[in-house]
Formats: sequence, C-alpha cells, structure tokens
Amino acid sequence: MQPQPGDRVRVERAGVTNEGVLMPSTTDTHLVIKLDGGYNVGIDRKAAGVDLIEESVHNVDDESDGDSDISEIAFEEDLPTVSLISTGGTIASTVDYRTGAVTAQFDADDVLRAVPELAGRANYRGRVVANILSENMEPAIWQDLVAAIQEEIEAGADGIVVMHGTDTMQFTAAAVAFMLDTPVPIVFTGSQRSADRPSSDNVMNAVSAVETAKADAAEVLVCMHAGASDDRCALHRATRVRKNHTSRRDAFETIGAAPLGYVEYEAASEAGAGGDVVDDAIGFRRDYAARGETEHAAAPALETDVERITFTPGMDPAAWEYLEGKAGVVISGTGLGHVHTKLIPQIADLTDSGTVVAMTSQCLSGRVCDRVYDTGRDLLEAGVVEAGDTLPGTATVKLMWAAANRDDPAAAMSESLAGELTEQSQPWR
Amino acid sequence: MQPQPGDRVRVERAGVTNEGVLMPSTTDTHLVIKLDGGYNVGIDRKAAGVDLIEESVHNVDDESDGDSDISEIAFEEDLPTVSLISTGGTIASTVDYRTGAVTAQFDADDVLRAVPELAGRANYRGRVVANILSENMEPAIWQDLVAAIQEEIEAGADGIVVMHGTDTMQFTAAAVAFMLDTPVPIVFTGSQRSADRPSSDNVMNAVSAVETAKADAAEVLVCMHAGASDDRCALHRATRVRKNHTSRRDAFETIGAAPLGYVEYEAASEAGAGGDVVDDAIGFRRDYAARGETEHAAAPALETDVERITFTPGMDPAAWEYLEGKAGVVISGTGLGHVHTKLIPQIADLTDSGTVVAMTSQCLSGRVCDRVYDTGRDLLEAGVVEAGDTLPGTATVKLMWAAANRDDPAAAMSESLAGELTEQSQPWR
Repeated sequence: MQPQPGDRVRVERAGVTNEGVLMPSTTDTHLVIKLDGGYNVGIDRKAAGVDLIEESVHNVDDESDGDSDISEIAFEEDLPTVSLISTGGTIASTVDYRTGAVTAQFDADDVLRAVPELAGRANYRGRVVANILSENMEPAIWQDLVAAIQEEIEAGADGIVVMHGTDTMQFTAAAVAFMLDTPVPIVFTGSQRSADRPSSDNVMNAVSAVETAKADAAEVLVCMHAGASDDRCALHRATRVRKNHTSRRDAFETIGAAPLGYVEYEAASEAGAGGDVVDDAIGFRRDYAARGETEHAAAPALETDVERITFTPGMDPAAWEYLEGKAGVVISGTGLGHVHTKLIPQIADLTDSGTVVAMTSQCLSGRVCDRVYDTGRDLLEAGVVEAGDTLPGTATVKLMWAAANRDDPAAAMSESLAGELTEQSQPWR
Repeated sequence: MQPQPGDRVRVERAGVTNEGVLMPSTTDTHLVIKLDGGYNVGIDRKAAGVDLIEESVHNVDDESDGDSDISEIAFEEDLPTVSLISTGGTIASTVDYRTGAVTAQFDADDVLRAVPELAGRANYRGRVVANILSENMEPAIWQDLVAAIQEEIEAGADGIVVMHGTDTMQFTAAAVAFMLDTPVPIVFTGSQRSADRPSSDNVMNAVSAVETAKADAAEVLVCMHAGASDDRCALHRATRVRKNHTSRRDAFETIGAAPLGYVEYEAASEAGAGGDVVDDAIGFRRDYAARGETEHAAAPALETDVERITFTPGMDPAAWEYLEGKAGVVISGTGLGHVHTKLIPQIADLTDSGTVVAMTSQCLSGRVCDRVYDTGRDLLEAGVVEAGDTLPGTATVKLMWAAANRDDPAAAMSESLAGELTEQSQPWR
C-alpha cells in the first residue's frame, strides 16, 4: 500500500533511517517528511525507500466515529499546500495571536478549530517558531523564522502564512524580506482585536492571508484589515508598511503609496473555499514578483549592533555618546533629514571610526534630501548616507542586514534591496 | 502736534527718559513704545508725557516721491494690529523662512516687500527673536519667544503670527501652548517651498496666518497649506499637529482628528484685504477658546533634562543606560505602549530614582493602553505613566514643562493641559 500524506513513514536514504510523517507535496520529484524532531526534510522520490509504518487516522476510510469535521483536514492532493508558521502562541488561541502562551502544539486540527473558515482552501502544514509576545521579538528569532520558511519552501509549500503579533510585525516582515529571496508568497498576518470580540478581524485576516499565499505573488507581504468597512484586506509590501494606529483594525498602512493590492474578502473567500487559486479576487495594483520568478535563496546573517535615534529639539548630546563604536546608526531626522548642527561633529566622529550613519526622516512620508540646505550638506560631508524614503524602522532592520551581508553597507542604504526605497514616492491620497 | 504711530518719540515716566518709536495700540489706556534696544514698553497714557522727536516719513503727508507703496504701510487706527515674530531670518527673505541668515532687520517694510498681499489687512509690528535654522531650535529660544509674545500681547497686539521653519515648528508651537495662556490667537506659519519657486506656499500661508491672527480664536495654532489643491490652509491645534511629509506643501496634519479649522484662501484673502476680521471665511470645526476668554499668563520655566527614546526590536539595552538620572523620559513604545519585557527592570530603576517615565506609541494615531496585556501591566507596575494619545514629540515638550511647573509631573502626563490629550480620539478618515 502506497503511503498517503499524513501517514507515519520510515525513510531510508544513504544508509540513514528516519521516521516521521509524510507531508503533502506539490512537486513530483520530492517527498517531504516531517521528522519527529520537528524538522521537515525533502527527499528525492527516486532515491528514497519509503515504508508505511502507520496509516493516519485521517486517511482511514471510516466515518463511523460520526465526527465529520475530521474529513475537512484530510490531505487532498489537488489542493495547494500552505504552511502556517506561528511566532507567538497559535492561531487556535481563542484570545489573540499576540498573547501567546496557550500551547506550542500547532497542527491542522488547531488551525481548523480556531478558524473553521480555512477548511478546504488548502492542505495546511503548521509549525511553531517561537511562542513570545510580539514586543519581545528579536533578530535571533527572525533568523529562526527564515530557517523555518526555507524548510517549508524546500518541502514544497505553495505559500507561507506567518502568524505574528501586530506590535512588531513590520520589523519581522522587513527582516524576512531582506534575508530571503522567495519563489512563493510569504504572507504575514495577525489580528488587532482578539477572537472573543465580535469585531475581531482574525477570521478575515487569516482567510485573506491564506488566499494570498495561494496566489501569484512571490513577495513578502503583510495582509491586514483595510478601511473602515469589513469587506477587504490590504496587501502591503513588507518594507513599506507601518502600524499607524494603536487599536484600529485597519492600523496597517503602506507609507508613500497605495497598498500593493487588496483582497476582496467575500469574493476571495467564496472563490477559494474549494481550494481554487483566486487571483481574480486579489487585485494587485503594481508590479510584483510572480510565483517561481525568483530563485529561492537566503542570506540570514545579521549585525545587530545597530541603533536608531530620533532627533528632538533640546535633546542631550550625551544621548549620542552611547552610539560610539556601533556598527550602524539610523537617525530619524527632522524634515528633509536634519539634526541640530552642534551634533554634526559627533556624527563625523562616528563615521570616521567606521560606524555607518544613515539618515531617514521622522516625517515618515517623503524622502530625505540633504543637498538642499546647509545642515544637510554638512551632514553629507560628515559621512552620513541618505536612505531616500526608507522608513526609519525598516532602515534599522536593513542596516542590520547590510552590515552583515554587504561589502559596502553604507552604499546599500541608498539603493533599494527589497522595495524599501522607491524611485519616486507615489502620491498617497 | 500729537505723535502718530511710527513717529520717533521721547517718553518721560517716573523720572526715567526713554526714546523709541510709537507703536500702534488698540487699547485706549496704554501707549506702546518700541525702545531703541528693541524692547516694547507699554505706558499708561495718563501717566506718560510723550514728546514728538521726529515724524515718521510714512506719516508725512507727501506722496511727491511717487512711491505709492509706502502709503500701504502707514498705520491706520481702524486696522487690527498683528505682531509678526520671526525665529529665523525674515519673511522678507526671498529664499525661505528656514534659511535664516539674510538680515535681522524686520519691520513692516520688509514684510510688505516680501508679501505685498499682506498690505492693508492689519497694522504690523515686526520683531526678531532668533535668526537660526529650524533644526537648531532650542528650549531657551522657546522661552525667548514666549517673552516676546508676552510683550506683544501686553503692547496690545490683536494677534501674533510666528514665522518658523517647518522642521521643528510643531515642537515650538507645542512649547508655547504649554507655557502661555493667551487671550489672542498665536499663529505659527512657514513655508515648505521657498518664495522663488512658482509653487511656493509662502503667500497663501502668510495671508491665511494673518487673517487667523485677526480672528476669534485665542489658541496656539499652526496655519499651513492643506490638501492637494491650492485653495486653503488648515488650522491645527499646536499640540496635535505633526509634519508628516518631508516636502509636500500640505505636510502638516492634525493627528487623530480633523484640523481645528480651515482658512478658505480666496474668501479670506478678499474679505480681509480691507482690514476686516473675516471669521466667516475661517471655518472652525470644533470648540476653541474665544478671543479674550483666557487671562494672559505665562509659565515659561522648563526642565530640559528630558529625553525621548523609540523602542525598536533588537535595540541594545545600553541605549537606556544614559537615561539614568534624567528628570524625564518619553518612550515611543510599540502598539498600545510596549517595550521588550527585558527592559522593564531598567525602567523600574529609572522611576525608583525619581525619573518620570511616560509612555506614548510609535503608531502615532490612537492611544496607549497598558491595562490590556501583561507587558503593559508590568510597565504600569514599574511606574510608567500613560500619556493617552499625546504625540511622542509633544509629550517630550510637555514633560519638560510639567517637570518644571507641576508638583506631580507624572500625573500631569495623563491629563490634558493644552489639548494635547483628547478624551476620545476622533475618527480621522
């Protein structure tokens, strides 16, 4: 008997024997086994000998237990596969993605119990990368997340949904965008209102994220509730998005342009319910990378000794002293990218000693331009590099990445690596 | 012959003799003399002996020089008086308010040469408080500005227009709002595009600011270009405004609500050209203090040992060490007001040693609420005070003021002192 996805299997390859669960795979050439240690391995179908150990209960053709819900999570070969990766708690939490501490168990059962609307749209693979509060997110976990996404892509996932607390989602999404070249959609989502509240956005966000993960857009995206009405989610490019409100469901906005696209919830939800890919119900407004266009690659190294500082009138120059010796500093300057002129010698000392100092604007919209006024020209002479219209938070993440992966990280801050720096800001209203 | 405004006069009072220029005054009880040292003094009409020394050329009834422009700046008793205070350069600069270094001379002639559209709307008084780039603005200059505004109000000004670079205008305007109770409008304006550019906003902003200074709203306001079309300025409450774009003319926005009002430029410009007060053409949308409602008072003390810090994932805890011993710290937290939980002991140490630590959100819109999640509750237990929906920059200025003027500055951060903290955020779109 041929093992089916969900079955427990033993695999023998090159003399090594592993046991695990056979995962669904959309490639004809590789099998994917979820090992007992939690890792997924891709195995050449031709090279591997796979023995059935135990049939999955879901694959046993016996509905006599009367629990017809079970059938919904049976793997179906004609459905696309979406990997659900959690960074805090589980989507099965009835409280909120953010609160975390419910359970580290996280499989298709959990997902469908929490959001039954997801059933039938895809074969789901679930895994937990971290179980933390969003504000406790750290660069080391960004790296764990990238490793997990890599494994899922290698295992044949057609798309990735990352469940993330909203507080720091934009930083993690940007980090993944810099660290990873992806041939499939990587869609971050979360919820601003917990599932126990009538106004919760968790179902719409989760369904829209899954439909986006099936679609033809190999980008790192943030998929969150859009606008005052309850009818769509916006798809934001990871490096241009910002949480602009503490509590509104439509807190996330693309800065300096319209979102990359919208998921019309009703249309997408209906069209995708049977497992179909619903590109029609997802309106992409601008260029994006097509599925499979980009070769899968990761550059996960980070130099975390990078700080961000916001210039404010009356600030103590001592605030800048702890920056000495840092690998990088991102300044949120005023207007076109300015600080008090008395700080410029301190900044020159920083760049002289090898610290990369990048300028962004606390205005958030628009681009810095330090060639217009004297202060700006003095800053450029002091070795400051302009980050264009890169958001200050994104620039901080980018500098962590560039300092570890580029020979000239300063130069990298003035070019677009992952859509974070636009040629020309779009009018945004 | 009775001295007229603009004439050079000698005043004898209580045995002291001063010379200066007689200024226009709207009070019947006091004369105002601009002394040679630059100060304005108000003098009881009954008590003072005023002798004409030299008639102003503008008051000489002789148009034989053919320069009819001159007549426009003659003082007219039936016009309201508006004080134009410059903090950088002069409105007569043909470059930009921001660039400064043109000249410290600043009188009605300069104003009308630069913006002839201002003629006839008011009697103008001009003075220079500073001649700096906006990014070099400092708390000490806020205090000089407040002293100058006080003098102008005491001298009978019906309204004040403060010319200010746009980079730090919001901080200065907020500082004045906290330091001063005003019976007349105090209107900050500037320009995003220099006067030599066809798209300059300097004329519309200056005219709108002057018309607002004549109107019935005794608030500290920011008056800047609004929207994409060229037809109106928005009036923002000083403590709720933010420069949200590096270069757009409509860069300034009220956060969390609609602006306090709009100046319909064409209507206001036409109606006010003859000196009339044009309340009709200025639409105020919400409650504001009426002219004369508030007694004039100033509390200019500031404790400048206050810092602002923006929490970012991956930030070095050492970034918080230089905060030890500060009078106050304003945190821009994530979401509802969070930081990494590992920082909470450091924050508890700060509050234990007497530092006021106030929480705002880097989201900018919406209010902090640290009672929802564990991290927030831990922060409250560590002594952090919530600043509601106060903007991070405004909160920093406010804490400088509260630390110097309130017995319990921490408690003050949770109440509204100058409209900076709203009861309930307004939907803003």
